[in-house]
Amino acid sequence: MRTVYHEQLADLNRTLGDMCELTGATMEHATQALLQADLGVAEQLLADRERMSVFAAEAEDKAFKLLALQAPVAGELREVVSGFQIAADIDRMYELALHVAKVARLRHPEPALPEEVRGYFAEMGRLAVRLAHGAHGVLDTLDAEAALALGADDDAMDDLHRHLFSVLMDREWPHGVAAAVDVTLLGRYYERFADHAVAVGRRVVFQATGKTPEQLLQAAD
Amino acid sequence: MRTVYHEQLADLNRTLGDMCELTGATMEHATQALLQADLGVAEQLLADRERMSVFAAEAEDKAFKLLALQAPVAGELREVVSGFQIAADIDRMYELALHVAKVARLRHPEPALPEEVRGYFAEMGRLAVRLAHGAHGVLDTLDAEAALALGADDDAMDDLHRHLFSVLMDREWPHGVAAAVDVTLLGRYYERFADHAVAVGRRVVFQATGKTPEQLLQAAD
Repeated sequence: MRTVYHEQLADLNRTLGDMCELTGATMEHATQALLQADLGVAEQLLADRERMSVFAAEAEDKAFKLLALQAPVAGELREVVSGFQIAADIDRMYELALHVAKVARLRHPEPALPEEVRGYFAEMGRLAVRLAHGAHGVLDTLDAEAALALGADDDAMDDLHRHLFSVLMDREWPHGVAAAVDVTLLGRYYERFADHAVAVGRRVVFQATGKTPEQLLQAAD
Repeated sequence: MRTVYHEQLADLNRTLGDMCELTGATMEHATQALLQADLGVAEQLLADRERMSVFAAEAEDKAFKLLALQAPVAGELREVVSGFQIAADIDRMYELALHVAKVARLRHPEPALPEEVRGYFAEMGRLAVRLAHGAHGVLDTLDAEAALALGADDDAMDDLHRHLFSVLMDREWPHGVAAAVDVTLLGRYYERFADHAVAVGRRVVFQATGKTPEQLLQAAD
């Protein structure tokens, strides 16, 4: 039993979970700022951006201490290194949420989104927030099945993203090029947010089972 | 003198340099496929994508061996961990180059780009390739000054990207929404490619000096 090692790894994962919560809350508010053209909410998110740096530095510090003091071996090394990579994924999700807030701020007092695509973004925002919470959940439980299940929300996100493009491309889009460019970039931010959440899930699968999702599926065949 | 450690770190950086070369060559050909609507080139790039996985697995393997066998301490630990992060950045640059190839393939036999923005993409492609080569160079030399200088090409990329958006937004854009969406996404791929090259440079600054670029600038004040 490597009790101290496992306690410290769980502690690292708790900090990563805190990062997920902040990211999820930020995406929730950024989506609200976008849908309601709420400048105050957007500015508050952008003013608070230091909060993630503090968490990220804390996670990095804990991971380095694990490497330096607990001398992890073999599979443990991969667990700790995946901690750095998970931190990078969540940090990127946070940046993408801030990009959404920036578009809301830039277009204010106009809404950035034409009425006919607002429903898509409300749903993409809901999925993004759920993915951030889901990533937090699996970092706490190390439940490989739940980590794999994050892929379902990512698939739903990809579907919405494709439909959104068909709205842009196929219909008589009456809102002009500027709105199309905003919608294109915003769609990409939400889609990438979901991709990173899935990447966190993949690393948790590895922490929990010592296998990649592909190796797990092969073993189940 | 930790000769074996330093030799193995240099060997890891050589593999990372190989990844940069492949990424640069891929972006060069993807830009060619885009500008010339060359389906064969685009398909070849997409068929060869396993080549990066091989390099990336090799880099990861070398980094884990360094952690496991050389028991790096303090600053060394940060050097090795940055190797994983550099690999992730280059891998992402490669994915972005493949995204460019995919757009070229999707729009073939039509060119994806209207004539009036082709010059922007020729120049963004040139900068992207130069950034990939630059990242390779600084991984070889660990020259902090050259690593910081990658920022200049990234600034030039950001300028082009902004100008491109003004072409999309401000003029009477006559090419319709579908072309605008393609140009928006393609612009973003090149811009993100440059961001990741700069991130590689930042990590090399740290490997070379033990300081972040910000700490270096403060020390120089």
